[in-house]
Amino acid sequence: MIKLTLKDGSTIQVPEGKTVLEAAELISSSLARNAMAGEVNGKTVDLRFILKEDCQLNILTFEDQAGKMAYWHTTSHIMAQAVKRLFPQSKLAIGPAIESGFYYDFDVEKPFTPEHLEKIEKEMQDIIKEDLPIERFVLSRTEALKRMDGKGDEYKAELIRELPDDAEVTFYRQGEFTDLCAGPHLMSTGKVKAVKLINLAGAYWRGNEKNKMLQRVYGVSFPKKSILEEHLQKLEEAKKRDHNKLGRELELFMTSEPVGQGLPLLMPKGAKVIQILQRFIEDEEERRGYVMTKTPMMAKSDLYKISGHWQHYKEGMFVLGDEQKDEEVLALRPMTCPFQFMIYNSKLHSYRDLPVRMAETSTLFRNESSGEMHGLIRVRQFTISEGHLIVTPDQLEEEFKGVLDLIDYVMDVLGIKEDISYRFSKWDPSDKEKYIDNPEAWEDTQRKMKNILDRLGLDYKEVEGEAAFYGPKLDIQFRNVHGKEDTMITVQIDFSLPERFDMTFVDKDNEKKRPYVIHRTSIGCYERTLAMLIEKYAGAFPTWMAPVQVKVLPIIDKQQEYADNIAAQLRKFGVRVEVDNRNEKIGYKIREAQLEKVPYMLVIGDRERENNLVAVRSRKEGDLGAIDVDTFIQKLVDEIATKAR
Amino acid sequence: MIKLTLKDGSTIQVPEGKTVLEAAELISSSLARNAMAGEVNGKTVDLRFILKEDCQLNILTFEDQAGKMAYWHTTSHIMAQAVKRLFPQSKLAIGPAIESGFYYDFDVEKPFTPEHLEKIEKEMQDIIKEDLPIERFVLSRTEALKRMDGKGDEYKAELIRELPDDAEVTFYRQGEFTDLCAGPHLMSTGKVKAVKLINLAGAYWRGNEKNKMLQRVYGVSFPKKSILEEHLQKLEEAKKRDHNKLGRELELFMTSEPVGQGLPLLMPKGAKVIQILQRFIEDEEERRGYVMTKTPMMAKSDLYKISGHWQHYKEGMFVLGDEQKDEEVLALRPMTCPFQFMIYNSKLHSYRDLPVRMAETSTLFRNESSGEMHGLIRVRQFTISEGHLIVTPDQLEEEFKGVLDLIDYVMDVLGIKEDISYRFSKWDPSDKEKYIDNPEAWEDTQRKMKNILDRLGLDYKEVEGEAAFYGPKLDIQFRNVHGKEDTMITVQIDFSLPERFDMTFVDKDNEKKRPYVIHRTSIGCYERTLAMLIEKYAGAFPTWMAPVQVKVLPIIDKQQEYADNIAAQLRKFGVRVEVDNRNEKIGYKIREAQLEKVPYMLVIGDRERENNLVAVRSRKEGDLGAIDVDTFIQKLVDEIATKAR
Repeated sequence: MIKLTLKDGSTIQVPEGKTVLEAAELISSSLARNAMAGEVNGKTVDLRFILKEDCQLNILTFEDQAGKMAYWHTTSHIMAQAVKRLFPQSKLAIGPAIESGFYYDFDVEKPFTPEHLEKIEKEMQDIIKEDLPIERFVLSRTEALKRMDGKGDEYKAELIRELPDDAEVTFYRQGEFTDLCAGPHLMSTGKVKAVKLINLAGAYWRGNEKNKMLQRVYGVSFPKKSILEEHLQKLEEAKKRDHNKLGRELELFMTSEPVGQGLPLLMPKGAKVIQILQRFIEDEEERRGYVMTKTPMMAKSDLYKISGHWQHYKEGMFVLGDEQKDEEVLALRPMTCPFQFMIYNSKLHSYRDLPVRMAETSTLFRNESSGEMHGLIRVRQFTISEGHLIVTPDQLEEEFKGVLDLIDYVMDVLGIKEDISYRFSKWDPSDKEKYIDNPEAWEDTQRKMKNILDRLGLDYKEVEGEAAFYGPKLDIQFRNVHGKEDTMITVQIDFSLPERFDMTFVDKDNEKKRPYVIHRTSIGCYERTLAMLIEKYAGAFPTWMAPVQVKVLPIIDKQQEYADNIAAQLRKFGVRVEVDNRNEKIGYKIREAQLEKVPYMLVIGDRERENNLVAVRSRKEGDLGAIDVDTFIQKLVDEIATKAR
Repeated sequence: MIKLTLKDGSTIQVPEGKTVLEAAELISSSLARNAMAGEVNGKTVDLRFILKEDCQLNILTFEDQAGKMAYWHTTSHIMAQAVKRLFPQSKLAIGPAIESGFYYDFDVEKPFTPEHLEKIEKEMQDIIKEDLPIERFVLSRTEALKRMDGKGDEYKAELIRELPDDAEVTFYRQGEFTDLCAGPHLMSTGKVKAVKLINLAGAYWRGNEKNKMLQRVYGVSFPKKSILEEHLQKLEEAKKRDHNKLGRELELFMTSEPVGQGLPLLMPKGAKVIQILQRFIEDEEERRGYVMTKTPMMAKSDLYKISGHWQHYKEGMFVLGDEQKDEEVLALRPMTCPFQFMIYNSKLHSYRDLPVRMAETSTLFRNESSGEMHGLIRVRQFTISEGHLIVTPDQLEEEFKGVLDLIDYVMDVLGIKEDISYRFSKWDPSDKEKYIDNPEAWEDTQRKMKNILDRLGLDYKEVEGEAAFYGPKLDIQFRNVHGKEDTMITVQIDFSLPERFDMTFVDKDNEKKRPYVIHRTSIGCYERTLAMLIEKYAGAFPTWMAPVQVKVLPIIDKQQEYADNIAAQLRKFGVRVEVDNRNEKIGYKIREAQLEKVPYMLVIGDRERENNLVAVRSRKEGDLGAIDVDTFIQKLVDEIATKAR
């Protein structure tokens, strides 16, 4: 008998040699029914894995990411089997599960069409109905190669050839179909229920454009048809909200081939939203005792050598000049910290001056490779509400709390509090290249940070290897409309740069001491935040941040003067208003204003003009009828001043 | 007899062979007394120059820049003669007249001290009293070299050796002193009246740091003692106001060795002033129908090839990458125009959409060489209120006028209207490298611009060769505290880039037509404008733009709470206020606040606290006595809202 320790800490005894699936049946038959894979001592394994000794056992269902991955990986094999049945000449490349489903790359004579996808999907249904048992077997490298070469499977053969001579190679077989694969996989094809092939794309073999272009088919599958339908609906909705599509349609931003990738141009409406957010943040930070700086966007390599960016981050920087040839090498800044530190160091500080809270609306540059660019999210230049708090060790917790309070307030005002989660990012002690090598300081600072997070009662998850090179960080993660998590905000405690920059303060005892630095942002990068807000609100921004707040729509020409007059009154109160004086039907004007997602439309007819009224159509509340102009202005000004959502 | 045409167009006949000085005597004996040099057919010459044929003749006095230069050049020879008398072992390098006086570089064993300068000045007075006649003579290159080598004058010899073999070399002799020099020079040392040696500096021979460091002595001289005294007083005042000194003392900005030259860091107070100016400009522009963009600070070379910057301006740009090696070459932008043009071109425009007025608070980069950097004026990165108006030909004049109206308003609000002048900068038809080669379009656009300027009744001067590469411009010149003119603002009419970018609008007749572009700024570069404002106001900014507007100074500890309370009330009205709660004497606190040039100090004692008063000391009006808090707030808020000076 061996002892299995389960997730909840309880233990069971089972005879040695049972499989993971058999163990699951001993725990509960419904658990076994839902089981997709297992986790033994933290490692994901097949359900057919044989338990030979005492271990931690976790049964993975579709609820677990690794369970989902096994499910999707098996579905990708089913797709490959269907393709081989329909197109026997096709060759298989690779077919992994990914975060949101699976894909398989095929070498086919002619690119697939949507009609092909339908056929493949139908064939997959048949394979599922056949409920073919899935078997795993292992071959030596030589045997595996012989098998592949015999079948003309050149892509698989290339992969195997790269393995060491003594490697063992795993295969999975279902019916007539066998595939080189590390697994894990489900027990039979019948376990897969609802399938949908989503998308077609071209993809170079191994991502290298010198290789052949293959046909990639994306798909997704779920244990229930209703979940699939819900998922497809969400995809549809996400597509509509996608900032990279909607943001262009609403003329918030554009890109331009001669300008280059990852360098979006903010058009007047997008620039307006960012101006509003920027002023909101700068004013709120000032209210909370921050001072603002405006420091250069480039510096000599000398500065980055002090900070360590040159040693740890040079690949991500735009460098001007050549260290071998030029007397002076400059680089565009990837972060603001060293610049604000120079300002701190420009005079002597007493403990009474601390905390020093410095903020900057700071443009930064990252030398991203072209493949990584995307809309307003992955860019080569962005503007961030950057800032650094220089604090005594005694002030660390209180100031950290203050930073989180500001972030909480900002998230609340933006209306995205429910979309964020916290991640405590620690270093990876084995990655000497990425991190400053001072294990004691790392452990000490991480302990301090964890204590603070716990005392604040924050609900966070911990991850290794995501820290900044100079210290641990708290990441505020935003879940976007595609369900993908992106870091929106980070707060870091830095033990290292104060040392490297020899930053000091004179303490009560007249001794020079080392401060801590908190690196932080309050709203993150404005471009990325704009993207998130576009998706969150599907472009229909709350009135206070809408680039155009009111559109005045005269029904016919003769109301034009009154319309202009209304607009002028609104502008006096700082309202952003446009008048649609074109010679178009009122229905057309209304439809256009709706597409532009303007919060208020004021329709102006004879009755309105004669009685000093406006007929108000609210984007949110629909037709509000004719209202006295002053009443409308009062309501609107209140809504804007309170930043109502 | 030959005919001389004078400046006023009149002519005189003089015998051939007369000198310029003799001709001057024929015109007027007072003119001859004040004559420093002559100008024959546009070329500056000695007073001893012999007139042999009909020519245009202009007698130059100290009022003319070239006359001043001759006066100062002679003074520099007098200084060199004095140095040689006092320090016979010293060697002479070069000694030119410059814009504001003269200098001479000496190779001396020990650096000079201020005491040395006094001695030299005294010796110069003697040489002036001796009234030594100054003679000019010419030697062949070989003779000149022999003369120099014989005397061990290695620096002069080096200069002569670089001349062509058949060159003639000019010398000037006064008493025992002879110097290699192209002239022109006065007739005798006695013409120089009031002399002052101003400054000592080190200077490498020929500006090359691999050469020997020489001793440079700066000086200035005038025909009257009273003018010298006035000049010295102005220098003293200028030094106090110099933004590069005062701006650092007031903690508005700093520079940092590891960050690099020409990259000033704006400290919290400087960043605050710029934030205030930026918001003022952005709001005013919005009020005047501008829309704002936010475009990237870099682009691929492709974009600059379309605009012509790559061909005409590459040397001034920071280029990322190497055209020979890299697939993609990016460059930091020197101007915003091509980016805003991409936005204009992103959709079709009707004549009804024009004018499109685009503004941007835009950071630009110029690859200046290190020698040219200075404070906030000559920098490698700066932020400008850039903008472009895309207009139909019909709208050109009206929109140009609108731009000037905005500039006029801004200059008025900043209080610098009396310090500016207008310069109409035209192209140089002979400079094919600098300018787009389209003479017809140049002449046409320059004519249009001149007509507009004339109709506006603007008082401007015309200069050639100062236009942008794509069109003529109107420069708004600011005369700084040192009397030096700097361009603060430019407005350009562009006939060329609309063509290159294929910008169009659909006119009433449904035809696609070419718009004009007006390039303009409204406040110029914020850094440079800040520098000008520092000098203009000697750091004592008007209240609305002062980084700290009020300082509350409690006399003793127990008034601290009341002081904080006053500050909180002020902050509610958006007033920027600091409380000096340090345990220091009130006199000390007041002196410090005065040095910081804070507009208002509120001194808080028992009487104030008990009666809800503040004792107001205005930077401008002095002690205003005890005032009711609300009354003070009302007065202050009014002063800020009206941007009073």
